[in-house]
Amino acid sequence: MLTLYYTPQTCALASHICLEEAGAEYRAERIDFAKEEQKAPAYLAVNPKGRVPALVTPSGVLTETPALLLYIAQLFPAARLAPLDDPFALARVQAFNSYLCSTLHVSHAHRMRGHRWADDPAAIEAMKRKVPETVAAGFDYVERHAFAGPYVMGEAYTIADPYLFTLARWMEGDGVDPAQFPKVAAHRAMMQERPAVQAALAVQLAKP
Amino acid sequence: MLTLYYTPQTCALASHICLEEAGAEYRAERIDFAKEEQKAPAYLAVNPKGRVPALVTPSGVLTETPALLLYIAQLFPAARLAPLDDPFALARVQAFNSYLCSTLHVSHAHRMRGHRWADDPAAIEAMKRKVPETVAAGFDYVERHAFAGPYVMGEAYTIADPYLFTLARWMEGDGVDPAQFPKVAAHRAMMQERPAVQAALAVQLAKP
Repeated sequence: MLTLYYTPQTCALASHICLEEAGAEYRAERIDFAKEEQKAPAYLAVNPKGRVPALVTPSGVLTETPALLLYIAQLFPAARLAPLDDPFALARVQAFNSYLCSTLHVSHAHRMRGHRWADDPAAIEAMKRKVPETVAAGFDYVERHAFAGPYVMGEAYTIADPYLFTLARWMEGDGVDPAQFPKVAAHRAMMQERPAVQAALAVQLAKP
Repeated sequence: MLTLYYTPQTCALASHICLEEAGAEYRAERIDFAKEEQKAPAYLAVNPKGRVPALVTPSGVLTETPALLLYIAQLFPAARLAPLDDPFALARVQAFNSYLCSTLHVSHAHRMRGHRWADDPAAIEAMKRKVPETVAAGFDYVERHAFAGPYVMGEAYTIADPYLFTLARWMEGDGVDPAQFPKVAAHRAMMQERPAVQAALAVQLAKP
């Protein structure tokens, strides 16, 4: 049995969707950031980083979205969520997901979590102001160089898709107009219709 | 044949070391940031991100350190650079490398590349001031929660080792005292002695 710790509106959605796509048996446990549950001893015992997602597996706890996504793909090979037998194709998936976690998500994080990187309130405001530009630059790279279509990697759905979908849901909040990125916007709309996406969103967006 | 594009003092060192560990046939091509070669059309044709590393393979170009490391491990399985047959163990490696790329390297980047996230010079200075604290927090997590020893994952050397070594070399420059993190410091010293590390460093630190 797997347990996914998630918080609504975070990147934990990507792993949640993947568990649904895989047909996994799992529990989803909500961590409420408003109540600072991510810093409570009970959760720090699960994930000392105090962040989501975390996936409790029979072998131990895993963190970091790109790692969770590949693990789920490997645990449920019948769901064909990654090109597990093709090192180059898999590396392209990993490169895409790595870009999302280390660049696009980081750009986004400077809107609400600038306090991670500076103490001065004016600096935090300055970071916030640049977010529409940096997030747009990230989606511009995806749109022009990394998106094959109709799925991220081409004809096959992979673990890159729920991750892109998750970050693309934040565009408007980050001051980025999805109409600038028609491929990413069309992908987001297509993903929204998938049963696995709707199932994960129904849990995450339910009132506590 | 593989070609690694690198710049000295960047995270490209991790992939360079891995190629040496694997006994790969490869060329190393230097991109000089001082001459802004990373923004020249010739390099942008290789990697439109304008960053290093990039690995040119017979199948195409790959970017992003965690993806390159896993690809090299898969391409040279005899070198046993990752637990390729154990999804949970591999996920732990990926989680570690993902933490380095999305958190620890990002903290470090706020010292010299704050302009990525704010335009205001005072904000860029404010980011720089917090780097010793944020980078130390990253190494504290590694030291206390993620480092098994003697290698990152325990008895087996993996692709996590050259990546940690690469980032640990930046500690002093980031205003962090390695003595605070004895496990990471001992690992760095041990890594420094490996022939593969010395071979990669000899190329990277050679005068142009």
